[in-house]
Amino acid sequence: MSHYSEQTGVSRLSNLAIDLAEEKIKVIDLTTPLTPQTPALRLPEPFLNLVDLELEEVAAYDNRGPLWSHNNIHIGEHFGTHVDAPVHWISGKEGRDISQLPVKRLVAPAVVIDMSAEVSSNPDFLLEVSHIEAWERIHGSIPHGAWLIYRTGWEQFAHDEKLFLNSDDTGSHTPGISAECAKWLSEKANIVGVGVETVGIDAGKGFDLEPPFPVHHYLLGNDKYGVTSLKNVSSLPVTGAVIIVAPLPFVGGTASPARVLALVE
Amino acid sequence: MSHYSEQTGVSRLSNLAIDLAEEKIKVIDLTTPLTPQTPALRLPEPFLNLVDLELEEVAAYDNRGPLWSHNNIHIGEHFGTHVDAPVHWISGKEGRDISQLPVKRLVAPAVVIDMSAEVSSNPDFLLEVSHIEAWERIHGSIPHGAWLIYRTGWEQFAHDEKLFLNSDDTGSHTPGISAECAKWLSEKANIVGVGVETVGIDAGKGFDLEPPFPVHHYLLGNDKYGVTSLKNVSSLPVTGAVIIVAPLPFVGGTASPARVLALVE
Repeated sequence: MSHYSEQTGVSRLSNLAIDLAEEKIKVIDLTTPLTPQTPALRLPEPFLNLVDLELEEVAAYDNRGPLWSHNNIHIGEHFGTHVDAPVHWISGKEGRDISQLPVKRLVAPAVVIDMSAEVSSNPDFLLEVSHIEAWERIHGSIPHGAWLIYRTGWEQFAHDEKLFLNSDDTGSHTPGISAECAKWLSEKANIVGVGVETVGIDAGKGFDLEPPFPVHHYLLGNDKYGVTSLKNVSSLPVTGAVIIVAPLPFVGGTASPARVLALVE
Repeated sequence: MSHYSEQTGVSRLSNLAIDLAEEKIKVIDLTTPLTPQTPALRLPEPFLNLVDLELEEVAAYDNRGPLWSHNNIHIGEHFGTHVDAPVHWISGKEGRDISQLPVKRLVAPAVVIDMSAEVSSNPDFLLEVSHIEAWERIHGSIPHGAWLIYRTGWEQFAHDEKLFLNSDDTGSHTPGISAECAKWLSEKANIVGVGVETVGIDAGKGFDLEPPFPVHHYLLGNDKYGVTSLKNVSSLPVTGAVIIVAPLPFVGGTASPARVLALVE
């Protein structure tokens, strides 16, 4: 028997539409607003960085366009809340570009693993397989086809790039995932990808791990995806949310700034 | 009594997650892929046009970034499938920018009015109030808070800008909405906005209407939104789909290229 009322004949999506209208299901915005001040990755020399955001005014209700205002956008593929596609990393070089991510994976369950307490005392904290196993003992296995949202509390620093990148002479100190755990997530967990609050899916000191930037290496090399700079993660339940990850379909793109929404009860 | 089974205790969103996993609900991509050849609006002189899309290579698994490939994006706010915000138009100058659209309106029911037969014999076809009234006699009132998807069949030309803009000495000949109907939709119909397959929400010859570009004028002046260059509209049912309209939240932006997905049974 269906889990829907057979008597009313109300369809699956009618239920969703009604619940949205009545706010029994709410839409939460997990996306960082995009401004020129939105924090961005700063690669050390000799690597080349992407541009930040610039809205270039082309007309503003003036002789260039009397009835309208419009702009060009100059932005890095990896600016703000964005999705990394496999081709971003050399391990996924032969994989999908950002236009090729299957849409079915972009609307999927989300589960949250909360390490914000650990991160508050150690900004270099790395998520380990043991943490996920402990989570699964309480909440059950991570659902197949889910996004794993790794909550670190780091969004509290998103208003200030200096705090957000937390850099000193030894590099950037922001939380991440160990190489072993990244490999496990890529090979053993049937997830779509990982969502984080930090500027990238790897730890600030990810270059020092083996392999360097292991989350990029393993996830993107295994057709799994990463989404970064999430906000409002504290509004998500541990299990039961549905996430909508919406990158723009740039053909050949290695990533795209994305709108990320969640449906919660 | 709830329209959910009280016995199973399965939650609203669990139902959705299960239906997505079992493909009883499918995700359809209504977004035009973004390439430098994606058709774009061409304003006549003396108005200034926006740029097309360029992905500017910054590193490609080379000495600029040995493990990764990444690009900058240069793109017009109104390129490809995009959402117009109220501030795009002078009538909505004091209204919301693209970062300010309420997320509740971005996940909403969609209904489709199909005028593709009429458009096939008249590319300058304009939707009138009488067409919507005829639709409502069959399908009931447009649901409050819905997106109205105006199907014209025009997406068949989206592979070729010349066909898509269909311009001659007298201007661009693409279907649209009459001024009276645009006013009616903005003031009488409790819709979130209108979605179209064409390059813009107004007819190709919208400048010749009174007021010029009436869909822009009335919708954006009434805090309603427009989404353009939709594809796969023929995959939508007349009623019963839920649409996800996902622009990027550019603070101060007049529009944004958007990912647009639909959930259908």
